[in-house]
Amino acid sequence: MSARHQQVETAILARRERVNEALPEELPVRRPEGLYEATRYLLDAGGKRLRPTVLLLVGESLLDVEPLGADYRAFPRLDDGEADLLSAAIAIEVIQTFTLIHDDIMDDDDLRRGVPAVHKEYDLSTAILAGDTLYSKAFEFLLSTGAADDRTVAANKRLAETCTRICEGQSLDIEFEARDAVTPDEYLEMVELKTAVLYGAAAAIPATLLGADADTVEALYNHGLDVGRAFQIQDDLLDLTTPSEKLGKQRGSDLVENKQTLVTLHARQQGVDVENLVDTDSVEAVSEAEIDAAVETLREAGSIEYARRRAQELVTSGKENLEVLPDNEARDLLSGIADYLVEREY
Amino acid sequence: MSARHQQVETAILARRERVNEALPEELPVRRPEGLYEATRYLLDAGGKRLRPTVLLLVGESLLDVEPLGADYRAFPRLDDGEADLLSAAIAIEVIQTFTLIHDDIMDDDDLRRGVPAVHKEYDLSTAILAGDTLYSKAFEFLLSTGAADDRTVAANKRLAETCTRICEGQSLDIEFEARDAVTPDEYLEMVELKTAVLYGAAAAIPATLLGADADTVEALYNHGLDVGRAFQIQDDLLDLTTPSEKLGKQRGSDLVENKQTLVTLHARQQGVDVENLVDTDSVEAVSEAEIDAAVETLREAGSIEYARRRAQELVTSGKENLEVLPDNEARDLLSGIADYLVEREY
Repeated sequence: MSARHQQVETAILARRERVNEALPEELPVRRPEGLYEATRYLLDAGGKRLRPTVLLLVGESLLDVEPLGADYRAFPRLDDGEADLLSAAIAIEVIQTFTLIHDDIMDDDDLRRGVPAVHKEYDLSTAILAGDTLYSKAFEFLLSTGAADDRTVAANKRLAETCTRICEGQSLDIEFEARDAVTPDEYLEMVELKTAVLYGAAAAIPATLLGADADTVEALYNHGLDVGRAFQIQDDLLDLTTPSEKLGKQRGSDLVENKQTLVTLHARQQGVDVENLVDTDSVEAVSEAEIDAAVETLREAGSIEYARRRAQELVTSGKENLEVLPDNEARDLLSGIADYLVEREY
Repeated sequence: MSARHQQVETAILARRERVNEALPEELPVRRPEGLYEATRYLLDAGGKRLRPTVLLLVGESLLDVEPLGADYRAFPRLDDGEADLLSAAIAIEVIQTFTLIHDDIMDDDDLRRGVPAVHKEYDLSTAILAGDTLYSKAFEFLLSTGAADDRTVAANKRLAETCTRICEGQSLDIEFEARDAVTPDEYLEMVELKTAVLYGAAAAIPATLLGADADTVEALYNHGLDVGRAFQIQDDLLDLTTPSEKLGKQRGSDLVENKQTLVTLHARQQGVDVENLVDTDSVEAVSEAEIDAAVETLREAGSIEYARRRAQELVTSGKENLEVLPDNEARDLLSGIADYLVEREY
């Protein structure tokens, strides 16, 4: 691992620790215990806390404070006063968690973060309710950071609109599964809605709360949109190119399951018969040789290179959008995270 | 029907019309159409719009305007300026609808408002997503009424806390089904969380948005809590006492299905073997004579009278809480609605 990657990982880990410490304070297991245990179950199972980290780093860069040097619970604002940035960070993580819980029901996925999905560990009703509870809790948190009232209203509007878009993205994702003729641009629009808007919210909301001007907020939102899309494209690429041991699941499982990705949608446009790239229809039975051959076909069609280029362009644009922030260590770390997301190998 | 009931019904109908007109403006069916059609499906299927009506009437009473005389979209405020009260009313109705959609999944109920439940008309994923979309839309609406920022923050906090409590109430309801020893007070706490808090929010939020003082807001919230609980108790009573034709479903179906209500929980405390009050275990097969005998047993145990008295006490208290409002026609209508809810026969 390069020194820069190591620096980025250390920065993420340090902020994850702060978030994890604050979680039991924000979401104590109280009556009805069964419900609140379920709200904590997936949160406690792990997760990088990437979006909260971005939120905290944007605050640190914007106020030009020493990284990890200011109290996140009483963070200085540009418009005087303080705001609880940690509570805002947890709001974003909690929204992410609610969408994962409900998505796992819709996709009937059994596992998440190496543990049973909430609807498997508990049951369908508890999973729906745990998601619904996290949903309102996120607004409770983001309405109570102590930022100026106009800023609080604006930040919560952003969060509400973001949630609406995530639902739209999930709806498009389900719709796309049922039809063939999805274009790469349609796919990227779906990814923007389903994944990138929350990343955008994580970057924009701290600027809103801390009193930044509209241009700064907008540039940071676009930063998040760019990096969020790049992140998803990289996820699609990793499924094809990372050895199964590193990936923690069968390499090429997206191909076996005929999942649409930017790579396969591009390949279809080039005339590749992507449905039959892999004949085996179970992840357990597929051979490495079969995956190798499929990946080689995608490579020859230029589809892997195409996806890599799109991801790289998004990261470049995302980093340019960071230039609204003061030039400091926190901004370097945000830039490093953007690179890291498309350079990571698992 | 008494003249007063007729007056109350007319008032509800008039405000329902305004709400129904505004719904397509607030929730247009746009892309992805499948999702937005599903968000509108249950809203368009009917409903009294009781909570929105209460919200609008509180506004009319508080500002002492002619009933239906002011523009709900640009409603006068006590702290100067205007607020979109109709948008706030729809936020409440939309939250109610989201909870019904998700509850019907959890309870596996097939019908709602005489049409298939959303997860039956569409599918599980669409129903979860439609509920999730309505959830964020409600906050979008309530964040954009044009009220003062501090009032907007306070109103949205109330809404977020209300949603959390509704989830807690639904969780308790599910938990109670699995155990016998539920007391009447535990049941009433569950009803408060699951049903009454949203009624409370409907009464308190307009006062918050329009600039009322804290005591007024609190009294109106308590009005809603009282009336919301009375409403649920009356629902339980109607199942026992209203002829099946009027009720639109088999009288006594709660007894057949061993559903816990304030009546049966009181009867159990009096030593009645409530599980075996009705031997027949299907609503289709039960006879009127069997229901009559069961109701007679509950009556002899004092349980029907007990529930009636509790409902009446709550309505009395609820009406007292209205005294913070100016004495005008809108306040009379709110008082009339409270009476109506426990005097209605179906």
